[in-house]
Amino acid sequence: MENREEVKVLGTWSSLFVLRVRIALNVKQVKYEFLEEVAGLHSKSELLLKSNPVYKKVPVLIHGSNAVCESLVILRYIDEAFVDDDRLSLLPSDPYDRALACFWACYIDDKWFSSLIGVIREQNKEAREESMKQVQTGLQLLEEVFSKCTNGNGKPFFNGESIGYLDIVFGSFMLLLKVAEKIKNVKFLDENKTPKLVTWHQCFCLNDAVKNVMPQFDKFFEYVKMRVGGGGVSFSSTN
Amino acid sequence: MENREEVKVLGTWSSLFVLRVRIALNVKQVKYEFLEEVAGLHSKSELLLKSNPVYKKVPVLIHGSNAVCESLVILRYIDEAFVDDDRLSLLPSDPYDRALACFWACYIDDKWFSSLIGVIREQNKEAREESMKQVQTGLQLLEEVFSKCTNGNGKPFFNGESIGYLDIVFGSFMLLLKVAEKIKNVKFLDENKTPKLVTWHQCFCLNDAVKNVMPQFDKFFEYVKMRVGGGGVSFSSTN
Repeated sequence: MENREEVKVLGTWSSLFVLRVRIALNVKQVKYEFLEEVAGLHSKSELLLKSNPVYKKVPVLIHGSNAVCESLVILRYIDEAFVDDDRLSLLPSDPYDRALACFWACYIDDKWFSSLIGVIREQNKEAREESMKQVQTGLQLLEEVFSKCTNGNGKPFFNGESIGYLDIVFGSFMLLLKVAEKIKNVKFLDENKTPKLVTWHQCFCLNDAVKNVMPQFDKFFEYVKMRVGGGGVSFSSTN
Repeated sequence: MENREEVKVLGTWSSLFVLRVRIALNVKQVKYEFLEEVAGLHSKSELLLKSNPVYKKVPVLIHGSNAVCESLVILRYIDEAFVDDDRLSLLPSDPYDRALACFWACYIDDKWFSSLIGVIREQNKEAREESMKQVQTGLQLLEEVFSKCTNGNGKPFFNGESIGYLDIVFGSFMLLLKVAEKIKNVKFLDENKTPKLVTWHQCFCLNDAVKNVMPQFDKFFEYVKMRVGGGGVSFSSTN
């Protein structure tokens, strides 16, 4: 596969999983065309159905004639398919550091994100409070991971000087964390409890690869409220 | 990290996720010590709690002073940390082929495995039949994936001449599929419907990297029946 083949992203403006792909392409300085699926419509594009017949979900990365699905798989593909000398790497070069980044990415997707959804959606008070605790626990863990990754060297990102895989995976959910804070009138990202993550989050949002593709807070806030009111929160697909 | 550092696997005989790690190490010809957690005991070893504080689950791979958790993360680590010229690769060299292997591995773990558990555990008849349909659909899909991977070249494995990542991820669940067939008196792997997978499965089980670490069918069958009878099926942890 030539790196010069056309790159397209099938996505929606509101999907945080699509956001990951766009940030990754920006970090790697890969030009792409963004093809927006219209969220809320009941029909999906022919191209989406053809490119992701198993899940029929965005994001899909199309590179030449190849389609890649699932955001974590796409991120690694982007890192491995575009490897000229002058491109940044999303993953560390050491296999163990790479394994750690992947472990925490899985933790964020499989465990922490579910708790965050629970904070927003859970009607039962006890269950909601349990979700809140788990979100806090996760943030404490990730504060420690950040300390280990940067080893007190003052670098701004989990990946060092530049945004990497774990920054993208975790950073993509920060907008939803902020929305959860507003809806539930709590503060998760707290300078006393997780000072390093607070600074990391600021650096992340101000980064050129991020700031132009991150959905606007107010628009996203209204979108989440509407989804919760509509009886379900799904941030992962066009459904 | 030196390749010569000691390698240990924390596991149980019955965990199919542990099985993956052992097969991968065998394929890569990495010597390791198997430290067995005693399944069914309520206490877990100090080493397990220290090595996997987040999930407290097997498998854990210990390489020198580094601990790696989560079977899919471990498989990639093994592939990337042991890369001498004469070692086989678990993942294809082409980034797109690698992405496809990872996509299908996620599909197997996130979707197909849940359906397989549903076949065994589900009490409600309709839900169980739905699970059975999904297991069948998954097998049809993977039959097609096998055809694409091997491109009609007659090679025995998804990965070509030797067992690779996708072979290990899928192959590790075949024992449970066979147990489900016996418990429910159905035939999933069928020469008429999925002839290529039938042959692949035979090759997989006879392979030197697999045959000495695959649990015995009768022992595993009794174990699954006992777990189902005990009110829950958990194949992923020491709990």
